[in-house]
Amino acid sequence: MTGIVHLIGAGPGAPDLLTLRALRTIEAADVVVYDRLVCPEILDFAPSRAPRIDVGKSSGDHPVPQQRINELLVRLAQRYDHVVRLKGGDPLVFGRGGEEAAHLAAAGVAFDITPGVTAAQGAAAALGLPLTLRGVATSLRYVTGHRQNNGALDLDWASLSDPTATLAIYMGLANMPEISAALIAHGRDPATPAVAISQATTPQQSCVFGTLADIASIASGARLAAPVLFIVGEAVDCIPPRIDAVVGAELFDDAPA
Amino acid sequence: MTGIVHLIGAGPGAPDLLTLRALRTIEAADVVVYDRLVCPEILDFAPSRAPRIDVGKSSGDHPVPQQRINELLVRLAQRYDHVVRLKGGDPLVFGRGGEEAAHLAAAGVAFDITPGVTAAQGAAAALGLPLTLRGVATSLRYVTGHRQNNGALDLDWASLSDPTATLAIYMGLANMPEISAALIAHGRDPATPAVAISQATTPQQSCVFGTLADIASIASGARLAAPVLFIVGEAVDCIPPRIDAVVGAELFDDAPA
Repeated sequence: MTGIVHLIGAGPGAPDLLTLRALRTIEAADVVVYDRLVCPEILDFAPSRAPRIDVGKSSGDHPVPQQRINELLVRLAQRYDHVVRLKGGDPLVFGRGGEEAAHLAAAGVAFDITPGVTAAQGAAAALGLPLTLRGVATSLRYVTGHRQNNGALDLDWASLSDPTATLAIYMGLANMPEISAALIAHGRDPATPAVAISQATTPQQSCVFGTLADIASIASGARLAAPVLFIVGEAVDCIPPRIDAVVGAELFDDAPA
Repeated sequence: MTGIVHLIGAGPGAPDLLTLRALRTIEAADVVVYDRLVCPEILDFAPSRAPRIDVGKSSGDHPVPQQRINELLVRLAQRYDHVVRLKGGDPLVFGRGGEEAAHLAAAGVAFDITPGVTAAQGAAAALGLPLTLRGVATSLRYVTGHRQNNGALDLDWASLSDPTATLAIYMGLANMPEISAALIAHGRDPATPAVAISQATTPQQSCVFGTLADIASIASGARLAAPVLFIVGEAVDCIPPRIDAVVGAELFDDAPA
């Protein structure tokens, strides 16, 4: 007889971009296992009696290997009724939630999955950037700049050069020079507009604009703090100007800018 | 002097997949403009004094043209402080939020955008389907089966045949036979696993499985109710078996199955 593991997407950064279901489930946690991208305000929704276990991973620095996280979740489910596994963004979009779910199922441990707003959607909303736009950007593609164990970027470059697709590149900070060069080599226009967004939706959010050809060096020069998301595509040029709100600001005093 | 328009993603269907920010903003609404995909429980979060305006669009049946919705939002902002514009899913992923934001900006009306969990993420979480999975599905692509004004499907077929990409096809029910045929003609394996999910994350959720070659006819035979999302890719075969939870079920008595 074991407990249940709740795989939960904690959203893109801002605590109020958590879903109601995630909040309710965290509030009932007996133990919380969390990643580096989950902010303290979200952890504070858990009961104070619930232990917090940090298995945070940053690129090139893996304090807890994935296999050990999988095993930890099984062990915790043998001891606690409600194990909350909190991940930045969405558990099933570059979150390895699928690997954890498969391991739990193989071990006979019940689980459920609560989706979360991914980084690309959080960044787009914060900037007013339309990820799709009729006649300009007819599809949206999420890719990762993370390297496989063999060191290769595991991407189908030819298919990524589609000029009508908006590309959202996760975990690309280290590899963006190589990604840009490969996209250009496979036919994507070097002048395609691009933006790099650091810590989207948080009070520390910052961003720099450029083109596919120069966004890697501009982002590097700006020394953006991780996590950094790159968005490449014609839609980046379609961000409407911001209009200052006269009313309404008071609603969001405690929200990120 | 005008009010502010809040463009808000209402999430994939289940009311508890709304974000905390969306809930708080809806609770402060002076007027609500909503689409067909937004459920009554979410509308009920608005103050009872706030008028609700239904501009719901279903495929092939456009009660309110987009240009008139844009103009309506401007007029409402001249009359109300907080205009809530509720859209199913995420406003910037096939939601025309970008068009509405551009129109508001051009008219000098302040706006902000609250992201939402999109249908693909909601469906994936409900099924346990990993949208990305190391070594199997290294990218995720959102496309729409909706037709342009000229009747053509505006998709780059060659780039969509990438075997390592998971495809999430929005609004594809009417056009899935044509989409499948074009993908196969451009080299995607007809045996690629596929699933069609109707009304994901709601109590009415249902789904059918097949392959790229036969999912359109299977979905048609099952007479799935709109909205239907198709997911195509090797990841569809990687849904782990469900393990019955003994504890935990009581937490979710009022949540969809």
